[in-house]
Amino acid sequence: MRKIGLTEIEDMALGAALLGAGGGGDPYIGKLVAISAVRECGPVTMLDPEEVPDDALVVPMAMMGAPTVLSEKAIGGNEYKTLYNMVSRFYGKEIYALMPIEAGGVNSMLPIAAAARLGLPLVDADGMGRAFPELQMVTFTIGGVSATPMALTDEKGNSVIFDTITNKWTEELARAVTMSCGGSVSVCLYIIDGKTLKEYAVKNIMTRSEQLGRAIRTLKSGTAGTREEAFFQATEGFKLFKGKIVDVLRETRKGFNFGKVILEGLGEDKGRKAYVEFQNENLVAAVEGEIVATVPDLISLVDSETFIPVTTDALKYGKRVLVVGLKCFELWRTPKGLELVGPRYFGCDTDYIPVEERVKGGRANV
Amino acid sequence: MRKIGLTEIEDMALGAALLGAGGGGDPYIGKLVAISAVRECGPVTMLDPEEVPDDALVVPMAMMGAPTVLSEKAIGGNEYKTLYNMVSRFYGKEIYALMPIEAGGVNSMLPIAAAARLGLPLVDADGMGRAFPELQMVTFTIGGVSATPMALTDEKGNSVIFDTITNKWTEELARAVTMSCGGSVSVCLYIIDGKTLKEYAVKNIMTRSEQLGRAIRTLKSGTAGTREEAFFQATEGFKLFKGKIVDVLRETRKGFNFGKVILEGLGEDKGRKAYVEFQNENLVAAVEGEIVATVPDLISLVDSETFIPVTTDALKYGKRVLVVGLKCFELWRTPKGLELVGPRYFGCDTDYIPVEERVKGGRANV
Repeated sequence: MRKIGLTEIEDMALGAALLGAGGGGDPYIGKLVAISAVRECGPVTMLDPEEVPDDALVVPMAMMGAPTVLSEKAIGGNEYKTLYNMVSRFYGKEIYALMPIEAGGVNSMLPIAAAARLGLPLVDADGMGRAFPELQMVTFTIGGVSATPMALTDEKGNSVIFDTITNKWTEELARAVTMSCGGSVSVCLYIIDGKTLKEYAVKNIMTRSEQLGRAIRTLKSGTAGTREEAFFQATEGFKLFKGKIVDVLRETRKGFNFGKVILEGLGEDKGRKAYVEFQNENLVAAVEGEIVATVPDLISLVDSETFIPVTTDALKYGKRVLVVGLKCFELWRTPKGLELVGPRYFGCDTDYIPVEERVKGGRANV
Repeated sequence: MRKIGLTEIEDMALGAALLGAGGGGDPYIGKLVAISAVRECGPVTMLDPEEVPDDALVVPMAMMGAPTVLSEKAIGGNEYKTLYNMVSRFYGKEIYALMPIEAGGVNSMLPIAAAARLGLPLVDADGMGRAFPELQMVTFTIGGVSATPMALTDEKGNSVIFDTITNKWTEELARAVTMSCGGSVSVCLYIIDGKTLKEYAVKNIMTRSEQLGRAIRTLKSGTAGTREEAFFQATEGFKLFKGKIVDVLRETRKGFNFGKVILEGLGEDKGRKAYVEFQNENLVAAVEGEIVATVPDLISLVDSETFIPVTTDALKYGKRVLVVGLKCFELWRTPKGLELVGPRYFGCDTDYIPVEERVKGGRANV
């Protein structure tokens, strides 16, 4: 058990944006929401998963929708209380703690704000260890846990409880409501007990976000080359490409941000081309037409000077970036995991090969 | 209090189809569902609204969706129990009685089947006195009653509870889920107490359906002319047009059946043309280009020989029909009522004029 204050939030927001793999929403907005809640209501107590009693009600809270919309719609203050009331009325039981469901700029931060405003502790865990676009893409699904009963509310005060036969149906129905509500909503889903938390959650991911964020924040000294080296060392990331964004293709469809970013090489990648495809999150990276990383491994773009993560909604022409590959949580590499979030699920006709195998000596294996 | 058995169901189905004004689903399918439930579980107890205690939980049950889909998807047997469990869990209270929310081939019958299978009484009332396409179009809306908490379930077992800020938002969100579930679902909405029931419901509408149905069923003797006269006398309907269907334009859009039926006159209407526009239900009837009736008054097409109502999904070329106008429930004629269901709401650029004023001496005032 420890307290989360403003410094921790700064670092967690930065690190979670890296784990967001391009998705999870704007880290700046997420940070502001968490900071203003903690300024007003005081620091949040963060629990280690092992500190949560087996029968306690643990409630993941998140925003659902297209990140571009998340950034434009205000996040109100009433949603947390509405969700709290719906869930405790439905379960006939008090909520013990909140937790994030995914890592990312908004979805790592929102539960901090909610915990501060509701006076509840937050668990140091999530259900992905990164961000994913669809709501069945959670480690709990591998464990056979249902996404529902799931509570949803919009900033206007509409609220919905879903109880579905499969998590794919939850995605289908909740996505339809999300679109009708204007493209982004607040949700509680995969509501679990402490026992399930300890069995299936990605543990200590908030702490990992914080460590990553602190590492990026303190990369101040040295030449560009040594700072880059330090960045990859601290994050345990693989360097996939360094280049300048020369085109961004975008489409908002079925409530998602789809797109592709085209890069022209810089430095040792000069003369080469690369692209990264995304659906909210980055899905596939290819250099000179050869795939160098795919989901479920994390593909993140960071500013080549500051190493600050660049989310898919912030991609623009001329930006110089590093394309970074990070190993995903081990459960995603199992057959069940790959069925849920492997490249083929996203329509990419390739087998999954772990990023560390695709890459040799820090360079993509092309 | 009285018992509803097979004869009552036959007559109610027939009469409710007339009150359905072209919508409310296929009366044959509705009848089969009610009959098989009553055969299996015994007759249903029907309560007069005055017999319901003020604090009793009264739950309207209905199908929501496009009538063409209602007719193609099976109506399962588990939906009633699922809805019952959701509603009583959410309210923490047992359901006292069910009621229909609208008159129509399916939605008058389904609550009978549900009442039989759940062993609950049915109240002799509804919230429209006819059928309407959108769920905020209920007398309870005029009385400021909320459609939510509303429970929804599909035949697969997915279920949803909505709690919205306005009934228009309920329509928006529930319609999105209905479409995702394949176009038709079972719902409980406008859940009320006995006091509200007595204040705002359209009372004794099931009994009126039964009387209308019996009148149609017993129109056996006499010439075509005297039977037609007897039909209009028994139903208190206005004869708007008699003709043959020469074209039906249809479009299924946003979960509704939109369309227009074109008629060529027969008998005293020979040489004249008419059309009826619909959105699930018939909205506007015009003869020789002049409007002769509009919502919220009821416009129903009946077979010119048998007087059996023809729903919008059963319209086809060559069918000979009478276009009948019926006065709507008095609350619909108030400014609040017309705002909800007047011709302008449906995009028809005309003021509402009561059908009896548009018609003189049994003929349209054209």
